[in-house]
Amino acid sequence: MDEIEIPESHPRYESLLTRHRIEHGVDLGITSRQGLIAQGRGEAYDYLLGEETIPSADDAARAAAAHLLLADHAVLSINGNVAALVPGEMVDLAAATGADLEVNLFNRTEERMQAIVDHLREHGAEEVKGLTADGRIPGLDHERAKVDADGIGDADVVLVPLEDGDRAEALASMGKTELVIDLNPLSRSAQSATVPIVDNTIRAVPNVTAHAEDLAAASDAALREIVDEFDADAALDAAEDRIRSGGE
Amino acid sequence: MDEIEIPESHPRYESLLTRHRIEHGVDLGITSRQGLIAQGRGEAYDYLLGEETIPSADDAARAAAAHLLLADHAVLSINGNVAALVPGEMVDLAAATGADLEVNLFNRTEERMQAIVDHLREHGAEEVKGLTADGRIPGLDHERAKVDADGIGDADVVLVPLEDGDRAEALASMGKTELVIDLNPLSRSAQSATVPIVDNTIRAVPNVTAHAEDLAAASDAALREIVDEFDADAALDAAEDRIRSGGE
Repeated sequence: MDEIEIPESHPRYESLLTRHRIEHGVDLGITSRQGLIAQGRGEAYDYLLGEETIPSADDAARAAAAHLLLADHAVLSINGNVAALVPGEMVDLAAATGADLEVNLFNRTEERMQAIVDHLREHGAEEVKGLTADGRIPGLDHERAKVDADGIGDADVVLVPLEDGDRAEALASMGKTELVIDLNPLSRSAQSATVPIVDNTIRAVPNVTAHAEDLAAASDAALREIVDEFDADAALDAAEDRIRSGGE
Repeated sequence: MDEIEIPESHPRYESLLTRHRIEHGVDLGITSRQGLIAQGRGEAYDYLLGEETIPSADDAARAAAAHLLLADHAVLSINGNVAALVPGEMVDLAAATGADLEVNLFNRTEERMQAIVDHLREHGAEEVKGLTADGRIPGLDHERAKVDADGIGDADVVLVPLEDGDRAEALASMGKTELVIDLNPLSRSAQSATVPIVDNTIRAVPNVTAHAEDLAAASDAALREIVDEFDADAALDAAEDRIRSGGE
């Protein structure tokens, strides 16, 4: 059983759904111990943020959608928590933007890689990259450097939700346009992003998809204007202000 | 193997030690999935707090030590994360204050109870309460209400580090003097405490012990003065200010 019955009107709907999906991810061998700890860190930041998508995060989601639509080759990177939390939502985003899906794990084992690929396929994914691992990200040690040469290796735009700081920085150093979803505006991942979306992944991914659908018919010039108008530093400052002021 | 070799001078010593102990707790069947998520929440708050014991938390630790020394019957409550993170430190605190140790789990299973009792004994504990479970905390459902009648059931002062909000409130409603260690000053546990210590457990428990040793020869009048001077609301406000202002 993959989903539970929670009425969407339940005041803690999102929180209960998140918790259920993470637990299910553990059962499937997708979510790691480090993933559970990371989930907890996210819960604390989201609580301080007011558990809602703040306006600057919505702007960032729109800029991210524009980048994905403008890309020559966009790839959505998937780790254990992303696979557990938003498997169908990532498949929908890939469909809305023409992006590839690629599994990338901080603690890579073939067993977890396969479990995640299977989980994504159950949620409608067709091609899932990441198992070939014939490319490398410079500046990272062996296991963590692995990517598909025709996936993240080749991409000009990469969405990395919940990415570890080292890898986020290494991807940015490769000159790729990096779209990050991270609830901590002070994290290295958020700080190194072209577009940092400071929001809960479970809200942010469907929101980027909604913006991509809304912008599907927009001209490249209109998309470029959205991209150019986005100010990453201002978005990070707005998120930090919100966390510090308590979501009020 | 219970400990790793980390030089205390390492800038991330405390964080690495914490992570190692939590992982070891999972291996021993002591730390639950919910415990790992709770650990992550604590990491985020500690990061915002500046990862140090702030002056108001040190005052709270001193007031907690005075309460423990003044108690007719003090009990230190131990859950899975506390057992994993500070087993020897809790044994030391019990020795310094004459308090009992009692295991209390949010998700109680006999297997986890026994694993925790064994772990505490390996760290020098003699008597460990919690297995009898012949008392009840009013207002909680069956499994979560269980305590030892001659332990927490009988105690006038209870230290509950990392306690869940429902149980912290229920214990406070029983009229017990409740000493709470919690990194979130906005949590119901911290809000319902007689003495909220807003600090990382791994720093707070040895700090309460140090204060108890320092106060070992103090008169009851001197201890009462420390207790009376402590202002819980001011301590919570100071901790929240620190989190909001970024530990600067």
